[in-house]
Amino acid sequence: YMRQDCHVCISEGFETHTRIKVKLNGKAIIATLNTVNSDLLNHGEAALSDYAWDLLEAKEGDKIKLSHPKPLSSLSYLRSKIYGNELKQEEIVEIVKDISQGRYSDIHISSFVTACAGGKLNEREIVELTEAMVEAGDKLNWESDFVVDKHCVGGLPGNRTTPIIAAIVAAYGLTMPKTSSRAITSPAGTADTMEVLAPVELDIKTMQAIVNKEGACIAWGGSIALSPADDILIRVEKALDIDSEGQLIASVLSKKIAAGSTHIVMDIPVGPTAKVRTNAKAFVLKKHFESIGKKLGLEIKVLITDGTQPIGNGIGPALEARDLVAVLKCETDAAEDLKERALVLAASILEFSSDLKEGEGYAIAKKILESGRAWEKFKAICTAQGGMREIPQAPYSHTVKAESSGIIININNRSLALLAKLAGAPEDKVAGLDLHVKLGSIVNKGDPLYTICSESIGELDYALDSLKEGNHILEIKEQ
Amino acid sequence: YMRQDCHVCISEGFETHTRIKVKLNGKAIIATLNTVNSDLLNHGEAALSDYAWDLLEAKEGDKIKLSHPKPLSSLSYLRSKIYGNELKQEEIVEIVKDISQGRYSDIHISSFVTACAGGKLNEREIVELTEAMVEAGDKLNWESDFVVDKHCVGGLPGNRTTPIIAAIVAAYGLTMPKTSSRAITSPAGTADTMEVLAPVELDIKTMQAIVNKEGACIAWGGSIALSPADDILIRVEKALDIDSEGQLIASVLSKKIAAGSTHIVMDIPVGPTAKVRTNAKAFVLKKHFESIGKKLGLEIKVLITDGTQPIGNGIGPALEARDLVAVLKCETDAAEDLKERALVLAASILEFSSDLKEGEGYAIAKKILESGRAWEKFKAICTAQGGMREIPQAPYSHTVKAESSGIIININNRSLALLAKLAGAPEDKVAGLDLHVKLGSIVNKGDPLYTICSESIGELDYALDSLKEGNHILEIKEQ
Repeated sequence: YMRQDCHVCISEGFETHTRIKVKLNGKAIIATLNTVNSDLLNHGEAALSDYAWDLLEAKEGDKIKLSHPKPLSSLSYLRSKIYGNELKQEEIVEIVKDISQGRYSDIHISSFVTACAGGKLNEREIVELTEAMVEAGDKLNWESDFVVDKHCVGGLPGNRTTPIIAAIVAAYGLTMPKTSSRAITSPAGTADTMEVLAPVELDIKTMQAIVNKEGACIAWGGSIALSPADDILIRVEKALDIDSEGQLIASVLSKKIAAGSTHIVMDIPVGPTAKVRTNAKAFVLKKHFESIGKKLGLEIKVLITDGTQPIGNGIGPALEARDLVAVLKCETDAAEDLKERALVLAASILEFSSDLKEGEGYAIAKKILESGRAWEKFKAICTAQGGMREIPQAPYSHTVKAESSGIIININNRSLALLAKLAGAPEDKVAGLDLHVKLGSIVNKGDPLYTICSESIGELDYALDSLKEGNHILEIKEQ
Repeated sequence: YMRQDCHVCISEGFETHTRIKVKLNGKAIIATLNTVNSDLLNHGEAALSDYAWDLLEAKEGDKIKLSHPKPLSSLSYLRSKIYGNELKQEEIVEIVKDISQGRYSDIHISSFVTACAGGKLNEREIVELTEAMVEAGDKLNWESDFVVDKHCVGGLPGNRTTPIIAAIVAAYGLTMPKTSSRAITSPAGTADTMEVLAPVELDIKTMQAIVNKEGACIAWGGSIALSPADDILIRVEKALDIDSEGQLIASVLSKKIAAGSTHIVMDIPVGPTAKVRTNAKAFVLKKHFESIGKKLGLEIKVLITDGTQPIGNGIGPALEARDLVAVLKCETDAAEDLKERALVLAASILEFSSDLKEGEGYAIAKKILESGRAWEKFKAICTAQGGMREIPQAPYSHTVKAESSGIIININNRSLALLAKLAGAPEDKVAGLDLHVKLGSIVNKGDPLYTICSESIGELDYALDSLKEGNHILEIKEQ
């Protein structure tokens, strides 16, 4: 922020929205200028946003150096991509470098995301984008050269298997340093949910210490600088509400490679309202993941799973945390579908071990879970991450009831996710939905269908308004 | 701007970058929230940017109403376009409406521009985009149903024929209510150049009065609300430095239709460093303009012209204004190429008249120019627009001299344009380049090649730095 009539602005030709290079303490950022027409600032004074302030480690009274940034040559590569050309490796490297160093404005990032979406990156470009994203950030190194991981290609509310799986495979003795992202377009990401139970903003050193001690962790990928370009791209993808296939693959695999993973199980849920809607699309994605993974030196096993309805009962960080803890504690009313799914995926991971044959993993995973060893391991991981937390409850809620009797024949995952987001998830941990029915449930008029949970009256009302406007969550067919 | 800990933000879940609907005085805008962590604002207080302040006609102490805007359904159409689908008419209408009413953030606009660039709009989509852009704004009506116009598909520095042509055809008695844009990616747009000579920010009523009196005007299109979406799209295209074909056509034709034009001559300069680089591309563009124009009820004549080097000597608003005034005044050292080009285009327009046959226009245009009638008409137009202005001169300049003797065999329009922009054009009217040579000129070592003009030392240095870094403007071949 500077005065519009400041002599620096006039002599340098700085105007509103000019991109300016700001130097301080040997660090440099490119910032967007906002101009003010008041005495909040004096001539020769500049103010910085909290974000810029932190990046530059600025102190009150510091002298900053301002200059015109060089025109970014990588923007001409971006334009070339917009016009449908393939990107060369060195072009991809430069774009990713400029993005991760904060040289692209939102306009440029949005254009890059859009130009690459809808199948416009070929396999070579995706491989090179992945490698460039890895190179632009930190990398984790582990003593073992057998480091497992799992990833779910989102889109299925409540599908929070990761913490359960990590606990099982770590209890078996494998190494699983899991980094997860926060929600992109869903009401909760694994990092959002895990954060309800323990701190997830771990630095590399802490993460390494936890994994050396417990075999696994569940950390937020953004708090360590693994593939920093990914987090910048994800923020814009979130605003656009898109996940492009090429960037999805690069995003997932760059985090895995940077985290030092070697063996990965991928879960792709398929359903009419899941992120991947048809088996055909899932097979294409599976094929791409496997062949691109191979080119990157990764062993990847892809499971295509049922994505016709949410997993568990809760949707939203705290409600999902409650569900997964119930599974780990083997409570009698724990969600059977969440448990089953976690066991199947954990089994696949266990079978990467040279001492297990295909088909032997499931029984072992089940035994580890049901013996309580997984729950003990999970508690140990939470303690190592900074201490296990109590799950909070929402101060406001409203239960939606059946307006007619019949059988639940349809659950719209997208409408559910939208409703949970309108209620405040994932920013408000306690916000979301608690489902009381499944596909095939028989309900009578007046039976509770789901409860909307919220941290504020405003958000609860907002979610309820969207129902009045015809947001259809469930379909009940009279018998 | 609101306090992060303000109870309105907390209860409504407003956070940094949340899009918020702001209502006041029966007006509503969608704004992006910035949060502050200081006592600049109290709880329950909000501050607005100058832009939002103006849009809402706010006064100090007004009470604004804040709410969550409804999710924009047009964003799902945008996503569909990103994935390569055709847009339906009603989808285009809704996107354009949301853009012109300020509901899209920069991220959304950039994505729309990118998703449509590179030939991704078909003819039907371009026609419907054009119509939607016209409908979203004001329209001008004229007594005559024969209203002429011309348009140059940019890319050629110094090609400032419009004011000359308008003066000639108005002197002949035709109606030419010209609206021009400011520079998109060039160092000067016609509106920037014309503004050196007279005010161009005219409202509709003023513009109609001028045209009724003088037959023509040269106004900035953005100051009247013709095709307001266009100006919003152009701002983002500028940041991306792209002009997509579909949006180029929709942008040009929507302004023409909204301005009430019926007969249009288009100038497409072709050259290796012009915007259109090959005759093949120019013919595709010509075909599209003609066929799309026809579908929109316009008569369009497209001239493909030489774009191998700049027109005139000056590049930048004031320097180009000097050149065109010299042509209008028939000064002996006036730029011959600028004069010739203006005559050819004016001739084409005159030949739209039912009383002229093809081939008769040129002699008439020449007579009008050389008799001084065009200059008289131009002065009258300037007076009607608010008074003719003196052309200002740059306080700082530097003349670049030939480092060797030889013949000029190449002029890089893009490097020239970049240099003029680095020197401050078009924001600084006086900034730009004054060329002392043409293609084929023979120079001796030490002869002046071009002069860089600037309003500030900082910008002059910046332009000179880019020369040191190898920005090649001219190529001299030893004889």
